[in-house]
Amino acid sequence: MGEPSPAGTSRLEAFSDGVLAVAITLLVLDLHADSGDPAGLAHQLAAEWPSFAAYVLSFFIIGVIWVNHHALFALAADADRRLMFYNLLLLMWVSTIPFTTATLASYLRTGGSDARLAVLLYGASTEGMAISFTLILRHLIRAGLLLRPVSAAEGRRAVRRFGIGSVLYPLVTAVGLLSPQLMLLLYAGMTGFYILEQTPGPPV
Amino acid sequence: MGEPSPAGTSRLEAFSDGVLAVAITLLVLDLHADSGDPAGLAHQLAAEWPSFAAYVLSFFIIGVIWVNHHALFALAADADRRLMFYNLLLLMWVSTIPFTTATLASYLRTGGSDARLAVLLYGASTEGMAISFTLILRHLIRAGLLLRPVSAAEGRRAVRRFGIGSVLYPLVTAVGLLSPQLMLLLYAGMTGFYILEQTPGPPV
Amino acid sequence: MGEPSPAGTSRLEAFSDGVLAVAITLLVLDLHADSGDPAGLAHQLAAEWPSFAAYVLSFFIIGVIWVNHHALFALAADADRRLMFYNLLLLMWVSTIPFTTATLASYLRTGGSDARLAVLLYGASTEGMAISFTLILRHLIRAGLLLRPVSAAEGRRAVRRFGIGSVLYPLVTAVGLLSPQLMLLLYAGMTGFYILEQTPGPPV
Amino acid sequence: MGEPSPAGTSRLEAFSDGVLAVAITLLVLDLHADSGDPAGLAHQLAAEWPSFAAYVLSFFIIGVIWVNHHALFALAADADRRLMFYNLLLLMWVSTIPFTTATLASYLRTGGSDARLAVLLYGASTEGMAISFTLILRHLIRAGLLLRPVSAAEGRRAVRRFGIGSVLYPLVTAVGLLSPQLMLLLYAGMTGFYILEQTPGPPV
Repeated sequence: MGEPSPAGTSRLEAFSDGVLAVAITLLVLDLHADSGDPAGLAHQLAAEWPSFAAYVLSFFIIGVIWVNHHALFALAADADRRLMFYNLLLLMWVSTIPFTTATLASYLRTGGSDARLAVLLYGASTEGMAISFTLILRHLIRAGLLLRPVSAAEGRRAVRRFGIGSVLYPLVTAVGLLSPQLMLLLYAGMTGFYILEQTPGPPV
Repeated sequence: MGEPSPAGTSRLEAFSDGVLAVAITLLVLDLHADSGDPAGLAHQLAAEWPSFAAYVLSFFIIGVIWVNHHALFALAADADRRLMFYNLLLLMWVSTIPFTTATLASYLRTGGSDARLAVLLYGASTEGMAISFTLILRHLIRAGLLLRPVSAAEGRRAVRRFGIGSVLYPLVTAVGLLSPQLMLLLYAGMTGFYILEQTPGPPV
Repeated sequence: MGEPSPAGTSRLEAFSDGVLAVAITLLVLDLHADSGDPAGLAHQLAAEWPSFAAYVLSFFIIGVIWVNHHALFALAADADRRLMFYNLLLLMWVSTIPFTTATLASYLRTGGSDARLAVLLYGASTEGMAISFTLILRHLIRAGLLLRPVSAAEGRRAVRRFGIGSVLYPLVTAVGLLSPQLMLLLYAGMTGFYILEQTPGPPV
Repeated sequence: MGEPSPAGTSRLEAFSDGVLAVAITLLVLDLHADSGDPAGLAHQLAAEWPSFAAYVLSFFIIGVIWVNHHALFALAADADRRLMFYNLLLLMWVSTIPFTTATLASYLRTGGSDARLAVLLYGASTEGMAISFTLILRHLIRAGLLLRPVSAAEGRRAVRRFGIGSVLYPLVTAVGLLSPQLMLLLYAGMTGFYILEQTPGPPV
């Protein structure tokens, strides 16, 4: 039967869309309120603010990964096995986000060393995603899987531009060890900046 | 590597289909009955009627969003980054529906200020969806992303027609502050009317 | 903006695939075993046999719906709004299956009037699916949405052939009121017969 | 209406991608940490190491199935009903993985006959997948559904190459009856070897 001929990237994109869509939607499972709880709904919602903040943040962090994945694979002509496994690695880290988000939200309320550990876990998820994404990008360039070849200088620039998260996420995590709340703000600022910076166009 | 060339809307539609499909199916997780419960099944089901009503209602509210999303993107030629983020915003609100539906169902039984707060939460979900949808529509028109250009007058008409939910949902929510049960009926009526009005064709 | 031009059925199929895939996979959430349970694993698994039987059965019932959906929409040229809402109705019933399956599995163990009610709930899910499917088929024929027109006689024959479930499911449910175990066997037999009957081909 | 004309494999692939994406992402639901637990986060994570190990392992086992499914169906020209049901059988086994993974992780900590039973359950999932995959491959070859016909000798070679899992998984399971920890290492080694062996290319 030999090796399959290049099959393009459409199924890799479809599977990735599926995993990203499920992971981003499972985030909601960490939000809950129950009339059986003696605390009224207002108190429950107020006590759960870290869950709401973390929900919105993680939704847009996964959303940005999807936007980047979409932009990158629009430039790809084909996928080889190695690319598929780098992509699986990315998806594995993305799939941990509902867990690390819930853990972060749970321990933000407690503070102390447990909160710092939860911050590290969340940082591991985002850093794992950023590194996997860089592996995908670098392999696409080196293995000649792009629609048009890029020069070594162009490639380095692209890796540097997309790889900026790999550098920023550990810094933000380090801040989180001092103040998890400040970390949430920094993540939100980075994600917001990224969204605005990447979306020139007519003002609406 | 430059900016990716226009990649069409097919992957944006696939990802949206994924999130909408997961969110609409997660609604079922709020339905449960357990033989370990000392109350018999009939009593459990009777006590859970708000969950069943909310399940059907939210299923069709998300379903209508899907139908509209489908109709709108069938007219779109391309997506830019801003559109992708407006779409993410829509999906974020859609993804909250399983949570706000479960909360509404839970507090419908209790009444009082908690029920009113649950009504407001549910209203925030539907209003957030309606506003995001209007942002998407307006940006498609203004940024010239449609398959054929529309005049300013046509554009305003379309925004007004699709934006009707943004006006009706707060009104329905206001009614819900007085009577959550009546609100459910109004939502159901609106959704049912919308379905019937939008589906001319040979009688079956 | 006018009405969208015929957009084919590809997105309707993609969304349906998504809902069917999520619903069929959520069935697994009813299977669980826990080392914290004082009963050993073997006892837990033995006590849970209805959950395993219901898992396999419901997996193939949804699977058969997918196969039929696939076969039917391969014949469809286009979808109108009414078809989309009939399809939503089908998906709504499919999405209830994880709930009605879990309820059936839970009460099979108890017997009595609760078990009979659980049988009726499960029957409502399958009957709801069968009726929705018939509505879709009939509308495809009457509204001229098929790739090639069919005669009235052909149409009636197709509706009768696909609609056989609408007649058989209530009969099987009636048997379930007497013996839920026998009902499971009948469902399994029907599904198995359907799979074998529909899959002629070289012996493997 | 007659039998549908060959519709290719695109929808079968889309549905399979959906089920595989949901199953692989549901694995995360077995990871949890809670600030309400009197044990600190570090202790909870340490006690949960089998869940983390099992998460990564099962993620890549399902991932490898996806990669193989992708490679195989890139060679397929069409799907018949029998193929669809073999594919459903594969997906049914894949969908059990979140359950058997959680059970394995839960009982790894306890050891004894329960751990051995959990090992057998996990082995049933992987063996079920391997056998279903072989059924799909064999039917594709025998029923002439491939893009280009293969000789009997080529076919036997392909079945043998892909079917190697069906032989190795029971051996690994047998080892697991003696030492579940060693089994995890063997699975990891097999999966890692498979990934490396299948991904020649420029070193990165």
